[in-house]
Amino acid sequence: MSNPSILILPGDGIGPEVMAQVTRIIDWYGNKRDLAFDVSTDLVGGAAYDAHGVPLHDDTMARAMQVDAVLLGAVGGPKYDDLDFSVKPERGLLRLRKEMDLFSNLRPAQCFDALADFSSLKKDIVAGLDIMIVRELTSGVYFGEPRGIFNEGNERVGINTQRYTESEIERVARSAFELAMARGKKLCSMEKANVMESGVLWREVVTRVHADYPEVELSHMYADNGAMQLVRAPKQFDVIVTDNLFGDILSDCAAMLTGSLGMLPSASLGAPMDNGRPRAMYEPVHGSAPDITGQSKANPIACILSFAMALRYSFDQGAEADRLEAAIETVLADGLRTADLLGEDGVTPVSTSGMGDAILAAL
Amino acid sequence: MSNPSILILPGDGIGPEVMAQVTRIIDWYGNKRDLAFDVSTDLVGGAAYDAHGVPLHDDTMARAMQVDAVLLGAVGGPKYDDLDFSVKPERGLLRLRKEMDLFSNLRPAQCFDALADFSSLKKDIVAGLDIMIVRELTSGVYFGEPRGIFNEGNERVGINTQRYTESEIERVARSAFELAMARGKKLCSMEKANVMESGVLWREVVTRVHADYPEVELSHMYADNGAMQLVRAPKQFDVIVTDNLFGDILSDCAAMLTGSLGMLPSASLGAPMDNGRPRAMYEPVHGSAPDITGQSKANPIACILSFAMALRYSFDQGAEADRLEAAIETVLADGLRTADLLGEDGVTPVSTSGMGDAILAAL
Ligand SMILES: CC(C)[C@H](C(=O)O)[C@@H](O)C(=O)O
Ligand SMILES: CC(C)[C@H](C(=O)O)[C@@H](O)C(=O)O
Repeated sequence: MSNPSILILPGDGIGPEVMAQVTRIIDWYGNKRDLAFDVSTDLVGGAAYDAHGVPLHDDTMARAMQVDAVLLGAVGGPKYDDLDFSVKPERGLLRLRKEMDLFSNLRPAQCFDALADFSSLKKDIVAGLDIMIVRELTSGVYFGEPRGIFNEGNERVGINTQRYTESEIERVARSAFELAMARGKKLCSMEKANVMESGVLWREVVTRVHADYPEVELSHMYADNGAMQLVRAPKQFDVIVTDNLFGDILSDCAAMLTGSLGMLPSASLGAPMDNGRPRAMYEPVHGSAPDITGQSKANPIACILSFAMALRYSFDQGAEADRLEAAIETVLADGLRTADLLGEDGVTPVSTSGMGDAILAAL
Repeated sequence: MSNPSILILPGDGIGPEVMAQVTRIIDWYGNKRDLAFDVSTDLVGGAAYDAHGVPLHDDTMARAMQVDAVLLGAVGGPKYDDLDFSVKPERGLLRLRKEMDLFSNLRPAQCFDALADFSSLKKDIVAGLDIMIVRELTSGVYFGEPRGIFNEGNERVGINTQRYTESEIERVARSAFELAMARGKKLCSMEKANVMESGVLWREVVTRVHADYPEVELSHMYADNGAMQLVRAPKQFDVIVTDNLFGDILSDCAAMLTGSLGMLPSASLGAPMDNGRPRAMYEPVHGSAPDITGQSKANPIACILSFAMALRYSFDQGAEADRLEAAIETVLADGLRTADLLGEDGVTPVSTSGMGDAILAAL
């Protein structure tokens, strides 16, 4: 039997730096745990644009469709800010999400004990926080047509379309209910059903799917109130399910509660492939961080935790995922910190690769 | 010369309770400061639906167009949750905003010294916070067509349209630059120009308007990052300008930073009327709070501060607005607190009308 395959797309900015540490971890699993992967690497985002004039080459897209999992670093940077919309680095990422049909984006917001003091929120509000945001990732205003900038009378108008079909809502709702069943059995669905008809349909479909998961306690919240409640008392939540655009904003808000954006992974999952594995891409929640690129300051943990999610969701290696997460907790408890997490007394600053060294040692 | 006119729409839930205290303050200005208003009252939201079967009667709409300022309490409540979308309480509020063409919604997020401990954020992150969010209020996905729930193949699809013309962006941008000029001369514009063409146009127009306000330091931020930065380090902002939907979420997020949602007012301003005053509506940021309705627990300060904004923006009585705001600060410094702000030692609990009494005494 051949090894499971991974396509690594380091992307831009700190992407390649943090991904280099993930590669070391992957190698460790091959050497020490007899868990070898066939790893290949390719370009995405600005890096792909520089090489090919497009943010994702068709060949790369085809390879992404063939592997068992994609690991992505980050895309974008000031160098590409003035590019035409159609070739912006982000389009490469969005094409992957859309063509791989990765409709369920899992964004855990966990507050690591060792970092609870680091949040801008009071410690008792965030200590022990462990919520999961499930963001719909292939539809909504990100992809709806018509879209563009059009002439109208003597001026222009910018148009985007929020659009959700029942089946699009149903499949992401189902994935959120499944997650809730495996966790605290509480699901909160967020939309603006008081203002948007797409939100009315969202609420209706989520309520309907609930019938299949009677053990889960379902609640509905308007997304504006959701943002408030995340800041006021985030521990009231277990799993949150929401659409693509609200999910973008609410998950970043939730991520920041933990005080450690450099720590947060994500998994984007689609339907099962022929081999039974879900089509999947894993990426850190943080961006390409051009301000610290090339300075060995980036925190590789979010990207490494994304690989842990790959072990869990793509490769059925939950125990190995636990092992990797535990190694990271150990290193943090030992006081090792990359530049983004400095500020407390008694901690030891480490570089990006220094953090990689420590995690490998803890493994 | 006749007195300036105010239409009061108490609305639902705690709306009437908090508005009763505002009425006392208005009377005080008539009696003690020789600043009399012609006040009339009418129904909006669920209250209007109960009386007329619509959340805003045409006569009420007509009256709103004739007065110098509208004061609104709050709309909505569980009783109306299952109403058809077209007659939901919120539609009454949205009709007022749209037909009065109140394109510029000013939402200050201020942390009151006496309440800095009350935030879920650490005190040093929020103490002294004073930012102003300018939210576009008459366009975007709240009003764009097509909208609705349609049949498509063998399922339904929910559609809303995000839509901004250059002139819609320009006028709200201008109002935000004007505010920035009167404040800290810093403006941050938030959109998702990396994903949405309407955001690309938004950024372009805001940048163009900037040429007329060269003294203002303009920055652009993606809205997801904006939500993060509001939680991470809100004091980096002075004025923020954003669209209707992002403004809804980001302003609630910002409001919660201050820990005192019951404290935050808003002003919604349109174009100048024949008398030179802007068409205007003032309302607290909080909602109808059905859970505490009728218990004399509601905090009337947000609604009273909304009247202070009316004094400032509609009636050119900046000094009187200052006086009212100072009276509120005094009462808070004296330790008086409604139920939403209890929890600290050494404070004195008061009812809704008790808070009104204290503010009148401080005036
Ligand atoms: C980079 C960008 C296109 C992306 C998004 O808006 O989805 C990012 O913000 C995210 O949350 O993954
Ligand atoms: C009540 C509702 C329609 C309204 C909105 O979404 O604009 C409210 O949330 C607000 O922020 O004023």
